[in-house]
Amino acid sequence: MKRVAVLGSTGSIGLQTLDIVRLHPHRFSIVSLAAGTNIDLLECQVREFRPSIVSCATEAAAAELTWKLREYPDRVEVVHGTDGCRSVAVVPEADIVVAGLPGSTGLLPTFAAVEAGKDVALATKEVLVMAGELFMDLVRSKGVALLPVDSEQSAIFQCLQGQAHNPVRRIILTASGGPFRAMSKAEMDRVTRSQALDHPRWKMGPKVTVDSATLMNKGLEVIEAQWLFNVPASRIEVVIHPQSICHSMVEFEDGSILAQLGATDMRVPISYALACPDRVSSGTEPLDFAQLGSLTFEAPDFERFPLLKAAYDAINEGGSAPVILNAADEAAVELFLADRISFQDISRIVLECLERIPRPMLSTLEEITGFHDDVAEHVRRTPRHHL
Amino acid sequence: MKRVAVLGSTGSIGLQTLDIVRLHPHRFSIVSLAAGTNIDLLECQVREFRPSIVSCATEAAAAELTWKLREYPDRVEVVHGTDGCRSVAVVPEADIVVAGLPGSTGLLPTFAAVEAGKDVALATKEVLVMAGELFMDLVRSKGVALLPVDSEQSAIFQCLQGQAHNPVRRIILTASGGPFRAMSKAEMDRVTRSQALDHPRWKMGPKVTVDSATLMNKGLEVIEAQWLFNVPASRIEVVIHPQSICHSMVEFEDGSILAQLGATDMRVPISYALACPDRVSSGTEPLDFAQLGSLTFEAPDFERFPLLKAAYDAINEGGSAPVILNAADEAAVELFLADRISFQDISRIVLECLERIPRPMLSTLEEITGFHDDVAEHVRRTPRHHL
Repeated sequence: MKRVAVLGSTGSIGLQTLDIVRLHPHRFSIVSLAAGTNIDLLECQVREFRPSIVSCATEAAAAELTWKLREYPDRVEVVHGTDGCRSVAVVPEADIVVAGLPGSTGLLPTFAAVEAGKDVALATKEVLVMAGELFMDLVRSKGVALLPVDSEQSAIFQCLQGQAHNPVRRIILTASGGPFRAMSKAEMDRVTRSQALDHPRWKMGPKVTVDSATLMNKGLEVIEAQWLFNVPASRIEVVIHPQSICHSMVEFEDGSILAQLGATDMRVPISYALACPDRVSSGTEPLDFAQLGSLTFEAPDFERFPLLKAAYDAINEGGSAPVILNAADEAAVELFLADRISFQDISRIVLECLERIPRPMLSTLEEITGFHDDVAEHVRRTPRHHL
Repeated sequence: MKRVAVLGSTGSIGLQTLDIVRLHPHRFSIVSLAAGTNIDLLECQVREFRPSIVSCATEAAAAELTWKLREYPDRVEVVHGTDGCRSVAVVPEADIVVAGLPGSTGLLPTFAAVEAGKDVALATKEVLVMAGELFMDLVRSKGVALLPVDSEQSAIFQCLQGQAHNPVRRIILTASGGPFRAMSKAEMDRVTRSQALDHPRWKMGPKVTVDSATLMNKGLEVIEAQWLFNVPASRIEVVIHPQSICHSMVEFEDGSILAQLGATDMRVPISYALACPDRVSSGTEPLDFAQLGSLTFEAPDFERFPLLKAAYDAINEGGSAPVILNAADEAAVELFLADRISFQDISRIVLECLERIPRPMLSTLEEITGFHDDVAEHVRRTPRHHL
């Protein structure tokens, strides 16, 4: 029995993680859950999965959950905030922590999980984008398993099984291209919030969906892949593959390419992260290749999608550049989702931040998160007409 | 240093094996060669690779080679025939034997290699089609490594690395569809020998090229894959993929599919079979996915390609049925290559043999090869107007 802690249990990754746990009650159990403020759903999850500790985003949410569970027969500790989330991540009974909190909020609890010696199924890419070196050092020194949940990183991870001793010539990271793949720059100037949230292939949270529309998400994945697989960004190539059937590929010295394919269903990478090195049923339908017909590939357009280029530049520069990239994007997407800026303003803001903000030396996690908050705050406070 | 014996050194697989050995002189050396009657080329190979023993098909060819090498400074033993070929396969210095002899002639020497405890890089699919059970039992009892060289089987083998403990849900065997993929049945009635020998993707020997045009080759591969990977034919699916970039795929319990892709260059699977589990450069160009554009897939047409269906039926029936299938095809392709029958006669002959020839019990290798010869002889001797 593998005992699972879920950070972000009411989000897209969390829900699908619980789906897998539900399919395999004799293989997995839930020991703790952390979520935001969707208390109705969290209550329901507590009743079904019976964790011993559960965390909400705020004190008020925790109070509401406690009230809802007042006649719940089992003992469950209700906590809240970053400290609560950390308690969920380090609960002694957990074998593996699913890190599915959106954006930078997942950073500290994920570090805490590794610090406590837990294996981590990582969906929160900001952990590696913001603090890749620190995190990978900690993972190595603690000897825990790091299992990627992102469909692309999981694909690469799956392709590398049994190949660890063979040098990687190239990682080919596929991208759906998002909803604006075939749009002209002029058309992209007029896209709305709801268009940006309408991803053609994947149902995901709003932040990652907008990041998919700008291709920033793919840029963050290049950075993530560099840390996860110890392959420099110069050997990570992004290819647009609109069908999202091939989730990524690895090319070796001999010219052989291994690829992982499957339905656009996150339960495949989640189940592999949970059960690895075993494979368990994930509830997905088998692919019918004859029916699929055609898988297409094209080069990404760095001009229409400057954030992909910016991500390559940031990881090549290293240091605090990826932190600026990520924080500026996080705040800009927030503004876009609040209808305060246009779609194209997202990349304008991020590029402007990268151009103007001086790079500090960041050695500790506290320095990184402090700088992240400063950059994000700067974006939030800068009057829009200045951009 | 891995010491290599090559059976079929002047054929397509043999030449490309020597290419890989030439690329890695500090990793591989050649200890013995067996070929047919292309003595000029074999002489050249002896001078370059300096084997200690070399075999030709006939006594006359051996005499010619001995004469050509009369002033060759090193000691080289020249032998001939099946016994000579067997001597090449069991030479004490060899670590691995590349079994690249065409058709049933490769059977006995390949068995001899395993019997002598050699690892085998297997290109001769007839070994498994004719005597799969005997051969796999011998491989297991001798504890040797069996490394597939066929691009499809190598793809499956590569996808299974690090996954040996995970049950396979489905093997997806890709097929280019051959030169007549898009032809009507009526058009196929009129195709010529040179059309059948003009494969759109792969340069191979004549037998396998004609078998690719009838899809018999894919049928033989279904049988081969069943033995190699211990997966029943009912879970081996053939998909037509005209670009021949995806060389085959494996689907696991969780719905995840691993695929191996690459240029249509046999040096990739050959180099992997030679160096496995390592990967070494194979001299192939990297794939450019954006330039490839599109990979397409379609279901095979069992009506226009009845030999693919016949192969499934034969392996499902088991026993001597695959031997009949293979022997009848081998003889029929021979007649077609000699311009004695039409293209469509190949499948007519094979289907008729499968329908009419009674099934004997075959327990030994001698019984299998004897029966094979009987069936082939029957096909050769049956007057054509009887069909």
